[in-house]
Parts: sequence; C-alpha cells; structure tokens
Amino acid sequence: MNKSTNHQMDEAIKLILQYNNIFIASHINPDGDNIGSMLAISLALRKINKNVSVLKSDVLPEDFMFLPGSHDIQEYKEELGPIDIFIVVDCSDEDRLGNNKALLSNAKKVINIDHHISNTMFGDLNIVDPKSAATGELIYKLIKKMGISLDIDIGSNLYTAISTDTGKFSYESVTSRTHRIIAELIDIGVDFNTINLNLYENMSIEKTKLFIQSLSTLKFYEGNSIVTLKITKEMLKHAGAKMEDAEGIISFIRKIESVEVACVLKEIEMNNIKISLRSKRDVDVALIAQSFDGGGHIRAAGCSINSNIEEAEKEIVGKIREVVR
Amino acid sequence: MNKSTNHQMDEAIKLILQYNNIFIASHINPDGDNIGSMLAISLALRKINKNVSVLKSDVLPEDFMFLPGSHDIQEYKEELGPIDIFIVVDCSDEDRLGNNKALLSNAKKVINIDHHISNTMFGDLNIVDPKSAATGELIYKLIKKMGISLDIDIGSNLYTAISTDTGKFSYESVTSRTHRIIAELIDIGVDFNTINLNLYENMSIEKTKLFIQSLSTLKFYEGNSIVTLKITKEMLKHAGAKMEDAEGIISFIRKIESVEVACVLKEIEMNNIKISLRSKRDVDVALIAQSFDGGGHIRAAGCSINSNIEEAEKEIVGKIREVVR
Repeated sequence: MNKSTNHQMDEAIKLILQYNNIFIASHINPDGDNIGSMLAISLALRKINKNVSVLKSDVLPEDFMFLPGSHDIQEYKEELGPIDIFIVVDCSDEDRLGNNKALLSNAKKVINIDHHISNTMFGDLNIVDPKSAATGELIYKLIKKMGISLDIDIGSNLYTAISTDTGKFSYESVTSRTHRIIAELIDIGVDFNTINLNLYENMSIEKTKLFIQSLSTLKFYEGNSIVTLKITKEMLKHAGAKMEDAEGIISFIRKIESVEVACVLKEIEMNNIKISLRSKRDVDVALIAQSFDGGGHIRAAGCSINSNIEEAEKEIVGKIREVVR
Repeated sequence: MNKSTNHQMDEAIKLILQYNNIFIASHINPDGDNIGSMLAISLALRKINKNVSVLKSDVLPEDFMFLPGSHDIQEYKEELGPIDIFIVVDCSDEDRLGNNKALLSNAKKVINIDHHISNTMFGDLNIVDPKSAATGELIYKLIKKMGISLDIDIGSNLYTAISTDTGKFSYESVTSRTHRIIAELIDIGVDFNTINLNLYENMSIEKTKLFIQSLSTLKFYEGNSIVTLKITKEMLKHAGAKMEDAEGIISFIRKIESVEVACVLKEIEMNNIKISLRSKRDVDVALIAQSFDGGGHIRAAGCSINSNIEEAEKEIVGKIREVVR
C-alpha cells in the first residue's frame, strides 16, 4: 500500500470515529471476498459501538451463510436511519452496487475500499490498492490500524475473503503478507478446517450433476490449446440446477495441460449467451472479450453474444483462434 | 517439534557435518512432499559440499520433473560409493522404501525424517514430528538449523512439498508456522505462480478423459452420504490413461455436500480391486479399511479386495453402511 493510500486510510479512520451511522455494501453477484470483507468490517465497527447496517445488493449464495454475521445482511429501508458513512467494499465502480447505487448521494461521506486496478475512485475517500490479493487484506489492515482487536468471528470472515479471492493462496496476486495475515488468523484460533469444508467441500448434488453433464460438451480446437464447454437451459432443468452452479467449471477445464484458453458458454436465454474466458500464460482474454463489448482482466474476462449457443461458440472460437495462432 | 525431536535433529546435524557420502531416498508411489523434501535437502547439502546421491525408489511422475534437481534422481549403483549416511524422508516404515530398503543395512547411520504418526522409528536417529503438516516443514527447519541459506531452488522444492501435502494449505494439519514458512519462501523469490501452474493446471487429456468416463459410474447410498466411483482397466484403455491418472478423483467426489464417505474402486486386475476411502467429518475410514486388512488415517485410508469390481463394491459399501448408519 503506497503513501497516498495509507493517508486515505488515516482519513477514513478519522471519519469513522467521528460519525455513528455506518452503512456497508458491495457488488452484485456476491463472492467470498465481497461478503467476507463486508462482514469483517461490520463486526469490527460494532465492537467500537458503531451503529452498522450491512446492505444486500443481490441474492446471497447459500454457500456463505455459515459466516458469522451473515444473517444480519439486509435490504436497505429508511428506518435504518441517516447514512453518515457509506463504506463500499470490493466494488470497482458505482454501477456494480446494483440498487444500492442510489444511496451514494444520500451519504454524508463515501469510503471506497477495493483492490481492483480498474476502480473508478468514486468515493470521497478511496482506499484502493491493486497490490492487495483481496479486499479482505485491506480490511485487515484497516481494523489493525484502528486498534480493534481481531477475534474468531472477524478472522473467519477475513480468512474466507482472502482464501476465496486467491484460489487458496495460489494466484499471482498473493504476497508473503497474505500468508502472514493468514498465520495471524490461525494463531487467534480461526477454525480454517471448518471454513474450508464449508467453502470447498460443499458441492450440491445438482451442481455435481450439472458438472458431469456439461463435461460431455467439451470441445478442443487448435491442437487442444482452446477448450470450450456449453451449459444450456435444458441441462439446468435436467440437473435441477441454477446457472450459478456453473461456477468453478471453467477453472476445472483450464487445468487441462494443453489448454491456453478456456471458454464456457452459458445459455441465459435462447439468443443471449454469456461467455466466460480464462487464459493460462500468454493470451490476453480481456482483448478478446472487448471485441464483443465485454471486459475483464488478462487472465479472466467475459462478454455476451446475442445468437444461439452453437453460433456463439463459432464466433468466439473464431476470435480466440486469431489470437492463439 | 518437541524437545526430544529437537535433540534428534541436533544429533543428525553433527552426523551430517562429520560424514561426506550422503544418500537420500523416500517412499514408493512418490508424491510432492516426498520428492520436494528429498530435493530440498539434497540441494542444501550440496551447498556445503557434501557428496549427495538422491535415489529413485519408484517411477517418478512426470508432473514433478519441473522441480530443480529432479533430473539428478537416480537408481542406486555401487559406483556411487560407500553409504555414510542414509537420509530417509517422508517414509513411515522401511518397507515403503521398495528396493532401496536393502541399502539400510549398508549405511553407517540412518536418519529418518518424517511426519507420519505411524512412523516405526527405524532410523539411528528419528526426526519424526506428526505435528508438521508436511515432511517439507521438517526439512525447512533442518536446513535453517544448519545455517545453510535458502535459495530459490531449495525454496521451490519446499513450496511444492508443503503445498501438495496440505491441499494448498487447507488441511487440518496446517499451522500458522506453515504459512510463515511459505511467506519466507515467497520473500526469497520462489516463483509460486509457475509452480502452481505446473502442479495444479497440468491435467493431461488422458486424465481428463478418464475423469469424465469414471464420473458416469458415480453411485450414491444411504441418503447420498456414501458415494462410490469405479475405474476399470477397460476405461484406462479407452482413455489412454494409467491408473495413476485416477489421482485426485476421490477428492473431487468427496466435495459433494451430502457425502460423508467417498470410495474409489480401482481394478488393478480382474480379481484385485484396490480401494481408497475418504471421510469428511465423522467416520474413521481407517477402521473400515482395517476390516479388509488395509490401513491409513481417520480421513484417508485404503485396502484391497480380491473379487471382481462389482462384488468388491457390494462388500465395501456393506461395511461402510454399518458405520454411517
């Protein structure tokens, strides 16, 4: 974290100490870093008697409901009182707040805490550090700097935030600091074994069925360097699964040794195909996604194509081929 | 590591400093902890000019041949000279050394370094610590205690040893020490991103095919709390795969949320079925394996049944049912 980010954090602490009614929200399509970060900071601020409301921007995946504090996440309503401070975590831009975007203008002050390089700095204060492997690392630092003692509940949320956003401490973004934070969380007694069972050993039968069915659509191109997989509405129906159950399949097919680009096509509607792209070493998939008005990072990006799933596959593979060749 | 293990380590260091010809070996069916530990200590001892030979006890999986020093692993031959010290790593008993077991009696001194609770203490010195998450952690400690500086090659082997034996730092056995060691390895410059690509994003097409095929044999029992999966010789032939490619499938099926016991049956020969068992929270699978003359740990065990694969499945499921009910 550089000097100016450090300064922003100091200013944020002053604001937090000054005001009482604090609201916390994060992005739609919630993930572990988003939920863990919101809950960790909310539990910490309650320890210094702040009046904290954690807002729901989207449906919460069942998988994270084991987290301490998760049942306090609620829809915004006026009775919650005035918004002194609105803390937005893990959210690269205002639109990703969903309906809660509208609350930004009601807040006296907005504190934006994030690790995405694409963050638009929409806050009055912006604690944005792309060198943090997870927003959870920034929340850890904020809590420590405020002198609030970590406890098992806060620690369990931080562990979840960091583990899920780093592929179990394996992504490029991990630093030695990441491991030292985790060491400290283990020392205070965080039950990471139970957390890991909840996070990673909890695949529903429906998700398993969808996984097995979808693997039958695996197709290879360009000497097995490109792989595609399709998930249709018919498959979801057959497996009793939801589209969110497709999560994780792309990481699995990217593991195939010859694969440089993995592509999953999801049939949202007949002529609305959502495409996820992952690369391993060389290809910038954000560039590919951009040519279909999508976006993302070098190794993970996405876009949509408005045609049927077979046609969409042809189009996207055509584009990937140009780059892989 | 308790006082007596610490003392054994001090004695081992004295021996290592006194002698010159050092041989290192580990168990058959090599894994990441075994190979990483052997290579890390071998590279460290070469830095203090010891004459080190790393012995092959079994075929080395291709997946680990990216490790620094891996190409120096060799079969024992007499020309390698007298065995002053024989360091055996990650090996719970002498039989697991395969053919290299015979060399134990040729050695002036045997140093046994391991973290398995079942270790038979077969060495002249026994550095055995079941509280270490990986043998790699003990090797790290030994190298530090000898005052040999870590470098990227040694560190890459230690990272591999520890990561592979802890399911990416997620198993119960992990401690804060584990994460602090990894933090230090990252600080000295270990390229964990490339290591992770090599270890976990390197699934052969044959293995992928075997994985997909075997999933079609998934069967559930007792309200989905028991799951079985079968791998036949026919499947291997069809996928162009080897039985070792079945590695990892059991971890995958254990993830299914309702599952308490996962069981994989491998058809080694027509009437020789090797069985692997994993449990999640409550069941002691070592007890189940023992009733078929097998063994292992509470959460991971194995045995063999001499009948055809369908019959073996009935037998093992019958036994698991008694425990799960």
